[in-house]
Amino acid sequence: MTNDPLVVGVDFGTLSGRAVVVRVRDGAELGSAVHDYAHGVLERALPGGRPLPPDWALQVPSDYVDVLRHAVPKALEAAGVDAADVIGIGTDFTACTMVPTTADGTPLNELPQFADHPHAYVKLWKHHAAQPQADRINDLAEQRKEPWLPRYGGLISSEWEFAKGLQLLEEAPEVYAAMEHWVEAADWIVWQLTGTYVRNECTAGYKGIRQDGAYPSPEFLKGLNPDFERFVEDKLDHPLGALGDRAGSLTAEAAAWTGLREGIAVAVGNVDAHVTAPAARAVEPGVMVAIMGTSTCHVMNGAELRNVPGMCGVVDGGIVPGLYGYEAGQSGVGDIFGWFVQHGVPPEYHERARERGIGVHELLTELAAAQEIGEHGLIALDWHSGNRSVLVDHELSGVIVGQTLATRAEDTYRALLEATAYGTRMIIDTFTDAGVPVTELVIAGGLVKNELLMQIYADVTDLPLSVIDSEQGPALGSAMHAAVAAGAYPDIVAAAAAMGKVRRGVYQPIPGNVEAYERLFVEYQELHDYFGRGANEVMHRLKVLRRKAVEGKNAR
Amino acid sequence: MTNDPLVVGVDFGTLSGRAVVVRVRDGAELGSAVHDYAHGVLERALPGGRPLPPDWALQVPSDYVDVLRHAVPKALEAAGVDAADVIGIGTDFTACTMVPTTADGTPLNELPQFADHPHAYVKLWKHHAAQPQADRINDLAEQRKEPWLPRYGGLISSEWEFAKGLQLLEEAPEVYAAMEHWVEAADWIVWQLTGTYVRNECTAGYKGIRQDGAYPSPEFLKGLNPDFERFVEDKLDHPLGALGDRAGSLTAEAAAWTGLREGIAVAVGNVDAHVTAPAARAVEPGVMVAIMGTSTCHVMNGAELRNVPGMCGVVDGGIVPGLYGYEAGQSGVGDIFGWFVQHGVPPEYHERARERGIGVHELLTELAAAQEIGEHGLIALDWHSGNRSVLVDHELSGVIVGQTLATRAEDTYRALLEATAYGTRMIIDTFTDAGVPVTELVIAGGLVKNELLMQIYADVTDLPLSVIDSEQGPALGSAMHAAVAAGAYPDIVAAAAAMGKVRRGVYQPIPGNVEAYERLFVEYQELHDYFGRGANEVMHRLKVLRRKAVEGKNAR
Repeated sequence: MTNDPLVVGVDFGTLSGRAVVVRVRDGAELGSAVHDYAHGVLERALPGGRPLPPDWALQVPSDYVDVLRHAVPKALEAAGVDAADVIGIGTDFTACTMVPTTADGTPLNELPQFADHPHAYVKLWKHHAAQPQADRINDLAEQRKEPWLPRYGGLISSEWEFAKGLQLLEEAPEVYAAMEHWVEAADWIVWQLTGTYVRNECTAGYKGIRQDGAYPSPEFLKGLNPDFERFVEDKLDHPLGALGDRAGSLTAEAAAWTGLREGIAVAVGNVDAHVTAPAARAVEPGVMVAIMGTSTCHVMNGAELRNVPGMCGVVDGGIVPGLYGYEAGQSGVGDIFGWFVQHGVPPEYHERARERGIGVHELLTELAAAQEIGEHGLIALDWHSGNRSVLVDHELSGVIVGQTLATRAEDTYRALLEATAYGTRMIIDTFTDAGVPVTELVIAGGLVKNELLMQIYADVTDLPLSVIDSEQGPALGSAMHAAVAAGAYPDIVAAAAAMGKVRRGVYQPIPGNVEAYERLFVEYQELHDYFGRGANEVMHRLKVLRRKAVEGKNAR
Repeated sequence: MTNDPLVVGVDFGTLSGRAVVVRVRDGAELGSAVHDYAHGVLERALPGGRPLPPDWALQVPSDYVDVLRHAVPKALEAAGVDAADVIGIGTDFTACTMVPTTADGTPLNELPQFADHPHAYVKLWKHHAAQPQADRINDLAEQRKEPWLPRYGGLISSEWEFAKGLQLLEEAPEVYAAMEHWVEAADWIVWQLTGTYVRNECTAGYKGIRQDGAYPSPEFLKGLNPDFERFVEDKLDHPLGALGDRAGSLTAEAAAWTGLREGIAVAVGNVDAHVTAPAARAVEPGVMVAIMGTSTCHVMNGAELRNVPGMCGVVDGGIVPGLYGYEAGQSGVGDIFGWFVQHGVPPEYHERARERGIGVHELLTELAAAQEIGEHGLIALDWHSGNRSVLVDHELSGVIVGQTLATRAEDTYRALLEATAYGTRMIIDTFTDAGVPVTELVIAGGLVKNELLMQIYADVTDLPLSVIDSEQGPALGSAMHAAVAAGAYPDIVAAAAAMGKVRRGVYQPIPGNVEAYERLFVEYQELHDYFGRGANEVMHRLKVLRRKAVEGKNAR
């Protein structure tokens, strides 16, 4: 090694993985590459054609390894660097995304007897079919006054390790019996790199209900289902690693996949949102990072431990050591815009965009940007993928109010952009009301490039918006953790100071807009509470009817 | 005249006029032709380019005359008959559609000084910008306990003669001053045919608040606006003609337009929905005719006078002599489906339909028909064009609840079909609850050809569905009134027996479907009452904000 030391960060997203090569000294991003998952998200059927019920979302673990094989070498090539200069690799993943494995980490779907079994596949974060189990977890936890419940905003999500694990047990006991480990994909990928299973403290805390060093008790688990009593000790518990720790060394096999040197540092697994906070230098209390992509994850450090209703969780040192890491989230954001563009925009917009050589998103944004606030006459609820914070209810669904025969695609598009901003505002207000004030928003993720959306967020939240100065924030954050794991920095705060990147106050709230949106936010809030807090449980009932209808059909 | 006597009926719709040549003896439809209005509906701008505010809907009267010039001769040609055999012509029109005219019937928009003035144009039935005036009319009528108010379900619509007239006075006093007559288009077209202005009893009753031989009093009108005191005597009142009466004889000019003989009978003006009842032989109490097209109009005879909340009106002999004619309506039906197909369906559906040589409506219907009831997980409110019955509120707007990322165009399409069926069910339930039971539905209008829609209506209403056996019900009904006006039959009941056409019980409710829809209708009802009966006035507030935003923009 003769040159500047380098690190590699790999960010595993919902549809693809991205590798970036970063200079340790200053965080300069020298090259990157993306590799799409061959199977994407399985929502309608398994690869073999077996249909899936509604609300399922699976993935194929070999797709993740393909990212190591393809994206890492390509990123090194794009950077034009010598792989020998890379001193460490760090990764981050979507969460809670769960892989059922054998003792040696083989995913169960790779066993011939389970290839056609939905429960043998990875349950992606947005797999929402474990809601009945989540409901029971919450009911029992509330009844028993479990001390960990308030640490999760009072509600455990159907997306997390316990709900998904319980669904697996109850719907596929034979798969559950064959499973030796119930592994976060964040840790599974590190296992592939190092040959060692190390469970990271971040997901163990946020998604695995590990608080003050303990998991939910066998008595609690037995109350859910007698066969679930030993879930923690049999399937979940495992030695932990702190964020930025070295999980192990790169194996010869993984070195061959990636083109990196055998034996370099591999950082403990991490979560896409959480690594982004230091990447954006957001290491102070009150600075909320919103990672806006398919969904939005909000992470923020706080000096004190508070119970925020409907937050995803608070974990001691969950983002950076020495502070309480708070997490909240919106389960659908960019994917709602994408869904609308794909399924709700008529041909002439597609043609116009094609003629002008721009995307349909850009065209709709341009048309929407020409509108006055309130001109479209619409209010939408952004629950097409359920509501994570602050209602924690994945049986909720999208609403649009105010459509007329004059409503056009750009009207609905803008209403959906705004709805997600109102959703973020609900989260911020809830944090502030709970004594964890939010003073600044830092935006990361793919949606930062939409200037209209950014201004709407500034106006709706009445907060200055800073923007991460990297197009690959999570991968940068993972690379920073690799630098810490390799010993190049003493801790992540030091790495953030040297390698993190942010442009402060890029969007400022415009007073007239703030006022106009205040009126509309009141309407959002009223509909939010009506549909989301029990006044009318129509969304739940519609989901039940839909499920019955689909089941009746599949049974025939 | 040597052959079978013939009559011509002309139906003036929202976008076009249709003429049909009918044999008097048996109602055989020998030929027909359609002529599109050159200007269609003016909703965004006047022909000269002047922009219109939201909720406006205007037309150009010369377009109506063009129907006489083109569609009538073409229908005669298509029928291959001798025009000399035609003994009468009858017409029907959308209502309440109002033409402001000079003393001789010249529409004000044809005066050079008013060509660029929105208020000089025809206000089409679906012009909804007079809601503030309608609100004041209703408030004052309720306060003064006006005896005519319950005859209109307790609410006067913004679509009708008084609300539209008051808007004209208040927003354009100079146009109001120049106006000698405020004429229903139904009567204006008869005026063009005969040279004589005869006001028909049907629209005078339903749209002109004429009850028991009198209009609202000058004291009432003065209470609305001092300058409105003489509205009835100055602008509205005029000698009346009963339905089926001879309004006059065809003038030489109109004979030249149409190719018909000068001097033949011209029937008193009528309304599209009302003429359809006898065309479908629906002359008995309890048989509700739903004319389903752009919007739906429900007409039904009743033996007794009852006050039905939210009905459009009840008029003694308003449909056939000797019975009370009840009217209700849904202000948006087919136009909601059309709006969705035009503005909410992505390119691949259009391509697929094109490849298969079918329409997008047909494709979506086919896909929707393959679903189980409840499978799409959606509930919509069909208020994209406001709500006529039973809420009489044009400030209401459309809603869709339950969208997810899995929602596809056929899901939304089916939810919209169903929403209109629930809307009809609300009307039927309200009539039945008020002591005017509905025992059978007869469907007429363009939407009868959608078999899925028809079955949904049968299932949602739990009523047998009969179908008019003519594709041009209103024009047939107009022709029947021409036959009566020409003296070929003593009255419309006799003409209906000889010339009317219906297929009884074509669609029967399916018990399992009835039960499934009962559950969904409960959800519709709850949302209907929440958004429509004051629990959350969000739709009204959104309309106000929209109006302000548009005004602010136009002012710049």
